[in-house]
Amino acid sequence: MRYCIAFSYDGKNYFGYQIQPNQISVQEELEKALSTILREHIKITAAGRTDTGVHAKKMFAHWDTNTEVGEDLVKRLNGFLPPDIAVRSIFKVTPDFHARFDAIYRTYEYYISLDKNPFTRNSAWQHWKRSLDLDLMNKACGYLFDYNDFTSFSKLNTDTKTNLCEIYKAEWVKDGELLIFTISANRFLRNMVRAIVGTMVDIGLKKIPPEELKTIIEKKHRNMAGSSAPAQGLFLVDVGYDWNRFIRE
Amino acid sequence: MRYCIAFSYDGKNYFGYQIQPNQISVQEELEKALSTILREHIKITAAGRTDTGVHAKKMFAHWDTNTEVGEDLVKRLNGFLPPDIAVRSIFKVTPDFHARFDAIYRTYEYYISLDKNPFTRNSAWQHWKRSLDLDLMNKACGYLFDYNDFTSFSKLNTDTKTNLCEIYKAEWVKDGELLIFTISANRFLRNMVRAIVGTMVDIGLKKIPPEELKTIIEKKHRNMAGSSAPAQGLFLVDVGYDWNRFIRE
Repeated sequence: MRYCIAFSYDGKNYFGYQIQPNQISVQEELEKALSTILREHIKITAAGRTDTGVHAKKMFAHWDTNTEVGEDLVKRLNGFLPPDIAVRSIFKVTPDFHARFDAIYRTYEYYISLDKNPFTRNSAWQHWKRSLDLDLMNKACGYLFDYNDFTSFSKLNTDTKTNLCEIYKAEWVKDGELLIFTISANRFLRNMVRAIVGTMVDIGLKKIPPEELKTIIEKKHRNMAGSSAPAQGLFLVDVGYDWNRFIRE
Repeated sequence: MRYCIAFSYDGKNYFGYQIQPNQISVQEELEKALSTILREHIKITAAGRTDTGVHAKKMFAHWDTNTEVGEDLVKRLNGFLPPDIAVRSIFKVTPDFHARFDAIYRTYEYYISLDKNPFTRNSAWQHWKRSLDLDLMNKACGYLFDYNDFTSFSKLNTDTKTNLCEIYKAEWVKDGELLIFTISANRFLRNMVRAIVGTMVDIGLKKIPPEELKTIIEKKHRNMAGSSAPAQGLFLVDVGYDWNRFIRE
């Protein structure tokens, strides 16, 4: 039987989502918890991976087991997992469901605090020393929709075959002293959101004009873009699937 | 000249607000920052002290200096202070202002997360294993207003002369999966809010009926009440003053 699990994690103490030799990872903690409780070796496949220090409000993974499981597994897993990983739900899916390949879109949020805030220091870029022009940053967002090759915002030497992404949403919103950037796409390249945010902050600081973003994208080279925004401000917030295809009651 | 400073801190890494020998404290960090920047030995007097691990969204302190200072000191202090302490404002007060003795009320909030939440694990009691009856907890709040001797919720052997407090507000509110307890009083005894919250959680768990709170208060002995709620859920959120008396333009 194939199950899907939805979970959240604070990435601060992990070397990313994916299992790494000799490093602590979210995947390893989840597989350890599932394998221990179900007394069976469980391997999970997630919608994607997040880098060191990046958080997820909602991530999905699928896994196969010989044991029929129910909703009570959520509480048992949460009791076993460390405080910085929480399972939100577990549900049965059809055997052809694939958490990574069936994802239609991924949505990320990036948080910037415009005042020094002790309570968001691990969940937002503390950017209070110089002010940012939100209108310029939102103007730059508009240009993202005109392109689909985002090589300029990709980590060099990754194993992806193409650097093509379709952007569905890209927008900055101000909520009190918090700036929230929301970006949705069919897929993201490694480091892409943080490189876009870093470049947009350069635009908000008026170091470069918003139109410069077009040139940066067109050059298709990573050293064109601004530096990466810090990991602690980035959250994977949702992954979209056509659930009607994969859940049958 | 006497100045007043409003500040926030995440108490996680501090042994409370007040300076302690050989321990890290919020007061020490602030005095070090002020003394370094103003090149003068500065001692500050706060509205009160918070215990190890307790946070403050808004705390006030006064201090005297020979140097005229302006609003720019806020940014300079924030640059000097660690990320878990933030200065919000600095303003001149009359020489008779006293941050502790002139406080009219103090307001605390206590946060309980009803689901396991990796992002509030340092700012809310993660109480997701058993459900709480909010109506019973709010019924208990009503009894607090009938009393003013809160010895039953005070740490033993403190140096306070009386255990009398006047409660102005006490209420539980649910916001999504977060329970927020707000309590205002003219003064609080050491450990009082956490002891009240611990007892209220026993009421919410139906371990004791709400009416039992009356007996607990009337016995005037600490071992009557429930155990203390964990420090990380508690925030000092405001201190009230009659500012018209103390600020002159």
